[in-house]
Amino acid sequence: MAKQEDVFKKVISHAKEYGFIFPSSEIYDGLSAVYDYGQNGAELKNNIKQYWWKAMVQLNENIVGIDSAILMHPTTWKASGHVDAFNDPLIDNKDSKKRFRADVLVEDFCAKIEDKERKEIEKAAKRFGDSFDQAQFEATNPKILEYRAKRSYILSRLARSLENNDLADVKALIEELEIADPDTGSKNWTDVRQFNLMFGTKLGASADNAIDLYLRPETAQGIFVNFLNVQKTSRHKLPFGIAQIGKAFRNEIVARQFIFRMREFEQMEMQFFVAPGTELDFYEKWKETRLKWHLALGLGNENYRFHDHEKLAHYANAAADIEFNFPFGFKELEGIHSRTDFDLNAHEDFSGRKLQYFDPERNESYVPYVVETSVGLDRLFLALFSHCLRDEVLEDGSERTVLSLPPALAPVKAAILPLLKRDGLDEYAEKIFNDLKYDFNLIYEEKDSIGKRYRRQDAIGTPYCITIDHDSLQDNTVTLRDRDTMVQERVPVAELRRIIDEKTNFRNLLSKI
Amino acid sequence: MAKQEDVFKKVISHAKEYGFIFPSSEIYDGLSAVYDYGQNGAELKNNIKQYWWKAMVQLNENIVGIDSAILMHPTTWKASGHVDAFNDPLIDNKDSKKRFRADVLVEDFCAKIEDKERKEIEKAAKRFGDSFDQAQFEATNPKILEYRAKRSYILSRLARSLENNDLADVKALIEELEIADPDTGSKNWTDVRQFNLMFGTKLGASADNAIDLYLRPETAQGIFVNFLNVQKTSRHKLPFGIAQIGKAFRNEIVARQFIFRMREFEQMEMQFFVAPGTELDFYEKWKETRLKWHLALGLGNENYRFHDHEKLAHYANAAADIEFNFPFGFKELEGIHSRTDFDLNAHEDFSGRKLQYFDPERNESYVPYVVETSVGLDRLFLALFSHCLRDEVLEDGSERTVLSLPPALAPVKAAILPLLKRDGLDEYAEKIFNDLKYDFNLIYEEKDSIGKRYRRQDAIGTPYCITIDHDSLQDNTVTLRDRDTMVQERVPVAELRRIIDEKTNFRNLLSKI
Repeated sequence: MAKQEDVFKKVISHAKEYGFIFPSSEIYDGLSAVYDYGQNGAELKNNIKQYWWKAMVQLNENIVGIDSAILMHPTTWKASGHVDAFNDPLIDNKDSKKRFRADVLVEDFCAKIEDKERKEIEKAAKRFGDSFDQAQFEATNPKILEYRAKRSYILSRLARSLENNDLADVKALIEELEIADPDTGSKNWTDVRQFNLMFGTKLGASADNAIDLYLRPETAQGIFVNFLNVQKTSRHKLPFGIAQIGKAFRNEIVARQFIFRMREFEQMEMQFFVAPGTELDFYEKWKETRLKWHLALGLGNENYRFHDHEKLAHYANAAADIEFNFPFGFKELEGIHSRTDFDLNAHEDFSGRKLQYFDPERNESYVPYVVETSVGLDRLFLALFSHCLRDEVLEDGSERTVLSLPPALAPVKAAILPLLKRDGLDEYAEKIFNDLKYDFNLIYEEKDSIGKRYRRQDAIGTPYCITIDHDSLQDNTVTLRDRDTMVQERVPVAELRRIIDEKTNFRNLLSKI
Repeated sequence: MAKQEDVFKKVISHAKEYGFIFPSSEIYDGLSAVYDYGQNGAELKNNIKQYWWKAMVQLNENIVGIDSAILMHPTTWKASGHVDAFNDPLIDNKDSKKRFRADVLVEDFCAKIEDKERKEIEKAAKRFGDSFDQAQFEATNPKILEYRAKRSYILSRLARSLENNDLADVKALIEELEIADPDTGSKNWTDVRQFNLMFGTKLGASADNAIDLYLRPETAQGIFVNFLNVQKTSRHKLPFGIAQIGKAFRNEIVARQFIFRMREFEQMEMQFFVAPGTELDFYEKWKETRLKWHLALGLGNENYRFHDHEKLAHYANAAADIEFNFPFGFKELEGIHSRTDFDLNAHEDFSGRKLQYFDPERNESYVPYVVETSVGLDRLFLALFSHCLRDEVLEDGSERTVLSLPPALAPVKAAILPLLKRDGLDEYAEKIFNDLKYDFNLIYEEKDSIGKRYRRQDAIGTPYCITIDHDSLQDNTVTLRDRDTMVQERVPVAELRRIIDEKTNFRNLLSKI
């Protein structure tokens, strides 16, 4: 556990030190749970976006992309349910003055019971060795059964209370379970109350005619309200999808884990519109397709798993997360949801407009069903960054830190490094830079020893270093160093474009999906 | 004039009909001055961003790009002057209940006087013919001199009143000039009052501990607060630049002209940090470079002009606009500003942190001076879209509407069109689609006559149409139709990738800068 925390600290400090992520407004001591992407972070983020956009929009003949505004008509959020139900139940500890999500306190309590179960099972497995039948043990051991019954009781009571907005019972539950403030141990709690997570703002010049707006808490609704406009102008038949990348905002109470849960974040969402009754087939198909998209990044199949939702949101008839093994454990990276016709129906009701599709094959009109895929862009950034960052001990005993990003996503594709700042080496290097810069994002660096310069490029994940020396002037060859193998080979300058392109082209990722 | 209005109406309706721009939340009757980019608009917008980003970040060894958050620490906007001075002076007409910007009413009044001057000059030019000496006429004609003196008096009084926040005098000026509501003729005005243009919101869970935040009204401050972090982690020496593309928000009272002035819009800004005393040289250099960047788009050199600011903002010691000839006349497209050390100094004062650079050549530390280039992304979209959209009468007397976008910016690079949906033509076409889709955004369309399909591609600016017919199955050739010349030629399928790439590669634009 301490190990994982150390890894995470290293991730955060490396991200800052090498220009990937800075705390927002740091000179003013930052803005909690908001971050800025620095010069290398912005490139990596843009490359992730491109990988997603190309995979969705370019590879699929029946998916198009849009870019809808953050500000939307406020009735949108009434229809979607966000005004009434996008709340967190909050509770304050009267002694520590700290604020908690009441449901998270209860869930953490249950997680501790689950830990105990796991330990019982491990103990038994050790005791019985090869003859251990885990399924039978779980089905019959009295302790396990008691733990499970208790968890099940707590979680279903919590779910029912929240569904009925019975906040008094949530508080009663916390008191019955004798849950304490994790830091201070105090059990002196306030009442539980609902807090809406949307950021509000006002449009208009004066108080008397201002309109209350919200910063969108998800990009999906921007797709739903544009469904008919896009379908009609693109002339797509069902099934077809609309993709979008964009900012969303949530006034999170407990924002934490670096860029994993931010108040301002970015989503990559695709809504796939299908005929009623076919949605579960497409749901399965998209689960599979999206997992393949992640696996193509090469972070290790063992670091991904599906988590099928037991408790479904009011709009869904099936839902699963793709979880990734972050430095703090397996957590949601992407959600795939069969959203039924809930959203389009709601927008029909609230707008009074028909949002139907005429199906020429069925010869009838209907409100389409929707399968959604939704990735947290910042979470994917964190997954890549934290997984690819590692310290290596080299053969000679020295160490290096390397960020082994997929080359197509690397912020800088190649570094152009003249061995010396004189004898025409710098001019020759500049010539190479100016020739390749139309095709690739490059760095030109002439300061410090070559070894130090290599280390700096390793630390930001640059796939290739190109060193220009005196021989280059004679025979038009350079030393090409590979980030991962550290092998250096002599190659003709005329070959550089082809070599870099072969390694860093998006086709390398896209062809694996 | 009527002609221009018609052109503009056509632009707006074509943008909607062909999936470029939809009114935001249209099913709820829209949100004023907010728009959504549809499937073709999103692609065009992304391509414009890429052209700018590549030109700034990729081509310049000493410019890097960042992506800072929309939400920033509120003191940022105190330091920048936006909390105190980012206001519009508003006035209401008591009879029509309409709201106006008081300064715009006065400026429109002066524009009418300028019209009169122009007419006097035209009349005289006609009267005197070849012997007309315009400079002498302007310097001596009593009417012209009177008009100019009047304008000069009005504008300088307006400027002084606004600078001193003497809003009573602004109202007095409007009354003295007998300015009327342009629609109703009423001169019954309220007092003038200041209205801050920033959208506000609140961070935090309860009223008592919430922090007042703003949606950023410009992206520039996100660069300034990150200046030292970027400089140190990128190890760049001065001069160097930081580029950024991102959303900004202004609660405009009179938002108008489609996407020209929106409440939510996108900026492409670059701040170039230089040694004090060198800023005006860089200012001139960037004016020239930025104009070249625009001219490379091929919309006609005559459609651009510089407008040097006479009245400078408090932070600038030189400023100019690049204006474009929009359907409603020459208007600002990009601003180039020599912002001095105003912003970094202000952030030093408000944060108590040093924002200085140690210059190894001068052997001293100083606060850098800044030259800014700032393009309105949506305005550039409108410039491209409105200029490239045109109706053509063909040789056979028929008409077509074509959107002759620069091929690198076109939403779709090629359309794959099987002549028929059978005989294996569709399968062959799909094979071509699947082969080219890794490299280009394509459309596959098999419905309607080839002529109709060509017209639809013309209308969204697709550079190439690729038609697959029965011969294709025999000889692996297809018909390649050029959007602009409408010439159709027979080319081998194996050549398609090279041909499309040659026409649509960003290098075509970038190499002209």
